[in-house]
Amino acid sequence: MPETPAHSIETLIEARWVIPVEPSGTLLTDHSVAVDGGRIVAILPTEEARRHFVAQRYHRLTDHALIPGLINLHTHAAMTLLRGYADDLPLMEWLKGHIWPTENRHISPDFVRDGTRIACAEMLRGGTTCFNDMYFFPEAVAEAALGAGMRAAIGLIVIDFPTAYAGDSDDYLNKGFALRDRLRDEPLLCFTLAPHAPYTVGDKTFGKIATFASQLDLPIHVHLHETEDEIRQSLAQHNLRPLARLHNLGLLGPGLIAVHGVHLTPDEQALLAEQGCHVAHCPASNLKLASGFAPVVALAGQGVNIGIGTDGAASNNKLDMFSEMRLAALLAKGVANAAALPAHAALQMATLNGARALGLDDSIGSLAPGKLADIVAVDLSGIETQPCFDPISTLVYAAGREQVSHVWVGGELRLDSRQLTRLDERELKLTANVWQSRITH
Amino acid sequence: MPETPAHSIETLIEARWVIPVEPSGTLLTDHSVAVDGGRIVAILPTEEARRHFVAQRYHRLTDHALIPGLINLHTHAAMTLLRGYADDLPLMEWLKGHIWPTENRHISPDFVRDGTRIACAEMLRGGTTCFNDMYFFPEAVAEAALGAGMRAAIGLIVIDFPTAYAGDSDDYLNKGFALRDRLRDEPLLCFTLAPHAPYTVGDKTFGKIATFASQLDLPIHVHLHETEDEIRQSLAQHNLRPLARLHNLGLLGPGLIAVHGVHLTPDEQALLAEQGCHVAHCPASNLKLASGFAPVVALAGQGVNIGIGTDGAASNNKLDMFSEMRLAALLAKGVANAAALPAHAALQMATLNGARALGLDDSIGSLAPGKLADIVAVDLSGIETQPCFDPISTLVYAAGREQVSHVWVGGELRLDSRQLTRLDERELKLTANVWQSRITH
Repeated sequence: MPETPAHSIETLIEARWVIPVEPSGTLLTDHSVAVDGGRIVAILPTEEARRHFVAQRYHRLTDHALIPGLINLHTHAAMTLLRGYADDLPLMEWLKGHIWPTENRHISPDFVRDGTRIACAEMLRGGTTCFNDMYFFPEAVAEAALGAGMRAAIGLIVIDFPTAYAGDSDDYLNKGFALRDRLRDEPLLCFTLAPHAPYTVGDKTFGKIATFASQLDLPIHVHLHETEDEIRQSLAQHNLRPLARLHNLGLLGPGLIAVHGVHLTPDEQALLAEQGCHVAHCPASNLKLASGFAPVVALAGQGVNIGIGTDGAASNNKLDMFSEMRLAALLAKGVANAAALPAHAALQMATLNGARALGLDDSIGSLAPGKLADIVAVDLSGIETQPCFDPISTLVYAAGREQVSHVWVGGELRLDSRQLTRLDERELKLTANVWQSRITH
Repeated sequence: MPETPAHSIETLIEARWVIPVEPSGTLLTDHSVAVDGGRIVAILPTEEARRHFVAQRYHRLTDHALIPGLINLHTHAAMTLLRGYADDLPLMEWLKGHIWPTENRHISPDFVRDGTRIACAEMLRGGTTCFNDMYFFPEAVAEAALGAGMRAAIGLIVIDFPTAYAGDSDDYLNKGFALRDRLRDEPLLCFTLAPHAPYTVGDKTFGKIATFASQLDLPIHVHLHETEDEIRQSLAQHNLRPLARLHNLGLLGPGLIAVHGVHLTPDEQALLAEQGCHVAHCPASNLKLASGFAPVVALAGQGVNIGIGTDGAASNNKLDMFSEMRLAALLAKGVANAAALPAHAALQMATLNGARALGLDDSIGSLAPGKLADIVAVDLSGIETQPCFDPISTLVYAAGREQVSHVWVGGELRLDSRQLTRLDERELKLTANVWQSRITH
């Protein structure tokens, strides 16, 4: 039988296992992912792949699992510069006594650019290829992400008080839109409207945001129902719980990413489901700030799409989606039952569900022909991940981010055998040191 | 002024930071630890150390923190061979449908020796220098620990049903005592009486154990109040909660290490404190098996000494004391408040408190002159741990076990720049593979 002629492609990644995430729980053994033009062109048995394709670059990853790039659904990336600056404090003392005053003193485009670059280095080294950010000076976040070659959803932050970044809500919005107009053709970037929280944004501003979100088809990224205090305060001020208030103001819908969602009644869970809203679950941050235990299993049961986020490094203190995925799976069991949130579901939350929340699930979040080649290789050969009865379970419960060996974003190699290809780790450490001195003195 | 002549010692470890754990929260910058004859002889500023000592071996760890070796206060080390074998299942289905039948089929001295050797490799690479084990064929656990050059408390397991290891409780006890008689002079080993749990050991056997514990001055290592089910069952069978039953049988006292202690009334917490009992807190296992949330902050408030354990790899699935220490600190906040269990207290739980529980705090658990040189160096230079405002916070909240660079046990180097010195990682991986095939087929 005549052989079909081989197709020429850019990259062929041969792996022990491919875990495409879609269909859920699928494990492909001795498969390869063929990449060309920044996209996945085929996933097929390695034997076949070698016959079908001639690649410019081969990666033979004999002990590795390939997974979709992890999607960190809630970050304040620049806050790496405040990692460990003020730990073990009650929430309000932490915010008002330490984090906010320090931000006020130091926040600038340089702070945000440097902090975000450090975050990108950390996230890429941990298998995260895309992050959904909310912070001041979003142009500096965008610049850092582009420099790192990382995918990012840039939050156009709005908050009803002045900062070094903007004077009032219109100023925040105008600056945000100018940024979006300037960078909307960058393939690595997308944008969200990011009103900080119900307790920092007024009705009028939320009203404008609802209008813009609908006109411009932009997702909304907002902290929501993080603490009981937030709910009490809203009841006192608005006679409404925050979710009901946002509902009245027209913010609920498939574009809404509600961050935290810790305190939700069954009716509120049903409302989120009915409206097609998404939840960004941040388990480590919720524990560290003693916010409570998010009802993840109940929410998922109602049909709410849930992704996973690390929050900022000041309240975590890692931007480590492996740690977060494991914690989400463990905590769901502690809150619900031992069979809750199995490994493959936790992996899906950290990948495909995050993509869905951002409206990017047509292009990222799983490994499938036609999707962008955001791919992570995890080396499962270490003694820490032996034996390996089930690679998906091993990934979630036993592996750590240090086992990430290679990371591709849009087919471009961003981490090569644990070395960053576009960021200079040594220089970033010096940058971190400089900021540490400034912040301390 | 004439210089004092330099003292000749075996090893001088110079470090950026030394965190001795005692006194609590102490951080020494640019200090060195001098080691001779397996013990710490001095901790002093590096400048001074260089004048005072001439060492056979120098370690210049310019980006590192030295901490006491971590003490894993509850393991079934050999169960690494069942890591990830059966996850995401309800507790009883997990135990009765998977773990127990598989153990029955495969358990042997070989299984225990091989599984424990893999566990020792994983633990040493993660900064653990001592583990408190409970498993069948404890002679194989002892052999593996000695081979690895690791410190271990060997549990002389007793359970009121026959296994491949022993036929009845007297057989378990006799085999245990014979082992202890044979190995009691091994400096790396100590022994505990390890009745499995209140629901697997009868009153008569517990009575014997109380007598032997007192006669032989041996600690008692027992699962206690792990699940609500265990308590219900005890009430039905004995008309007593398990703790009250053990109290009646004379088991409570400063020798008792109660593993888990998840479900404890305030009165029970007070009783544990009053009796000087210790708790081995296993946060990941408690979450994964949906056992509940241990009242760690309340227990500590009552004055109970609490150490940290990983439990076996089938219910965790890591033997990673860094991960466990961080989870303990986070979970305590989620259960109590954001200021609960600060970083230095979590580090103390993972070191000194574990030593106290084992009655070994005179010789291990902190870095102090005269103590055994069980020392771990953690490299904090990675981008993941930058900036570093507070090395203790960085260790607990941001660092991972992969940052452990060097490990000494009794002054002997067991991990050297991430390489095990006495165990062959490659051979252990092959061993894991062989067992995986046997267990699967």
